Amino acid sequence: MSELHPFDAAIALKPLAEGEAQGHTSPAYANFIGPYGGITAAQAIQAVLRDPRLLGEPIALTVNYAAALADGPFVARTRPARTNRSTQHWIVELLQGEETVVTATVMTAARRETWSGHEAGMPDVPRPADVPRTPRQGVAWLNRYDMRFLTGFVPRKWEGQGDAESLTRLWLRDEPLRPLDFASLTAMADTFFPRIWLRRAKQTPVGTVTMTVYFHADGAQLAATGTQYLLAQARGQGFRNGYFDHAGQLWNEQGDLLATTHQVVYFKE
Amino acid sequence: MSELHPFDAAIALKPLAEGEAQGHTSPAYANFIGPYGGITAAQAIQAVLRDPRLLGEPIALTVNYAAALADGPFVARTRPARTNRSTQHWIVELLQGEETVVTATVMTAARRETWSGHEAGMPDVPRPADVPRTPRQGVAWLNRYDMRFLTGFVPRKWEGQGDAESLTRLWLRDEPLRPLDFASLTAMADTFFPRIWLRRAKQTPVGTVTMTVYFHADGAQLAATGTQYLLAQARGQGFRNGYFDHAGQLWNEQGDLLATTHQVVYFKE
Repeated sequence: MSELHPFDAAIALKPLAEGEAQGHTSPAYANFIGPYGGITAAQAIQAVLRDPRLLGEPIALTVNYAAALADGPFVARTRPARTNRSTQHWIVELLQGEETVVTATVMTAARRETWSGHEAGMPDVPRPADVPRTPRQGVAWLNRYDMRFLTGFVPRKWEGQGDAESLTRLWLRDEPLRPLDFASLTAMADTFFPRIWLRRAKQTPVGTVTMTVYFHADGAQLAATGTQYLLAQARGQGFRNGYFDHAGQLWNEQGDLLATTHQVVYFKE
Repeated sequence: MSELHPFDAAIALKPLAEGEAQGHTSPAYANFIGPYGGITAAQAIQAVLRDPRLLGEPIALTVNYAAALADGPFVARTRPARTNRSTQHWIVELLQGEETVVTATVMTAARRETWSGHEAGMPDVPRPADVPRTPRQGVAWLNRYDMRFLTGFVPRKWEGQGDAESLTRLWLRDEPLRPLDFASLTAMADTFFPRIWLRRAKQTPVGTVTMTVYFHADGAQLAATGTQYLLAQARGQGFRNGYFDHAGQLWNEQGDLLATTHQVVYFKE
């Protein structure tokens, strides 16, 4: 392939100075209003990944959506607030004009081999090849993923018949195919449609305000996962007075837990 | 009571300038080395709560433990990176000398009344009065809590016999009694001993590197909860090459979900 993958084009950052790079929102990952939050999170972590001062690989990311990004350029500011022998703590801001639109913290580390043994096992589900692709229409970013829902799809009727439970499970990969890395895994952690739509079967306006991703895989494991499908799972926890949260997990086809993720979403009513 | 509660003494901050206040580590909340992480998180959120520029109440906090705090004073720096009509995004740093020891982001909001309905229900457990207090010895901060373990207590034998599962449930409240607020709820979100000790029954050295708390209760609900016990629950998810995470929930005695919490913990082997 000589042409740049839309994801690589979307997360491309042009160095401006130490700790400063310029990016641009991507029409290929547009949401209803402004960009898909997953691509914004990927841009925030990419700003750290491309910083020459980086030590190790990402362990944890928290990204806060402070304001709606306008379509157009932004500046990513990265600062290693603390560098230790094997860990580093970053503060990141994305700015448009002089206004902060995203804040983030990223913790990176050089891992050592230790005892390992994941507790959150992959649920027993059909293989991706045995699950039909779920047709999804609408905004651009949905076309960037091959999604195969196992349970908890968007309600087909919006008549307030909502479920008591908001569990969703789907197989998921980039469209077109692209080998997995930290940036694309970050973006995939935000693919869950709002849990409140499942709970209520009512399309109340929503917006993610903060998302955290914990990386259990290292770069080698992501590279080995390659273009496999990921099993993505999320379930709501608290829903009260304008905000709800969900907790989620992402495994590769072998059942390796690659990441866990949580987020808080604003809802209007 | 004319004497200051140890928790209030621990989170006291003296204003130095706009966005700058001085605090001090608290011997009453000492851990093995340095302070209990929960009190550090409480100090970080308290720095925002006391900032006169605050809009609304906390919705989400992420605190990153960038370095071990030395016993002694620290400076808390708070900056409202973005203020919208009803939400605000804060960046917080705690410094000792000129070194950053903690980074944090806090999202606050003025909530409106909406449809509400928590999905994560309180498990069916005996009432606190029917559960004996669990004797715990050792570091100072353990004496600041009345803990009544229901399941998943610290292993009594450290012979590597570990469980496959790291679920812990306990009733918990301040000792001496103190009405619940955002700062004390934040501290309580970090009371879980390391999940890897349960998994492995081996006291490998550990340290929390990042913790997130999502607040589902507002200040009025915390005040109404008062000095009740909270049911605190946590379970490990991924454990690999030096880092594991857990997901947790805290309910009051009526079964209201007050907060959800997640953290990543470093472990040596």
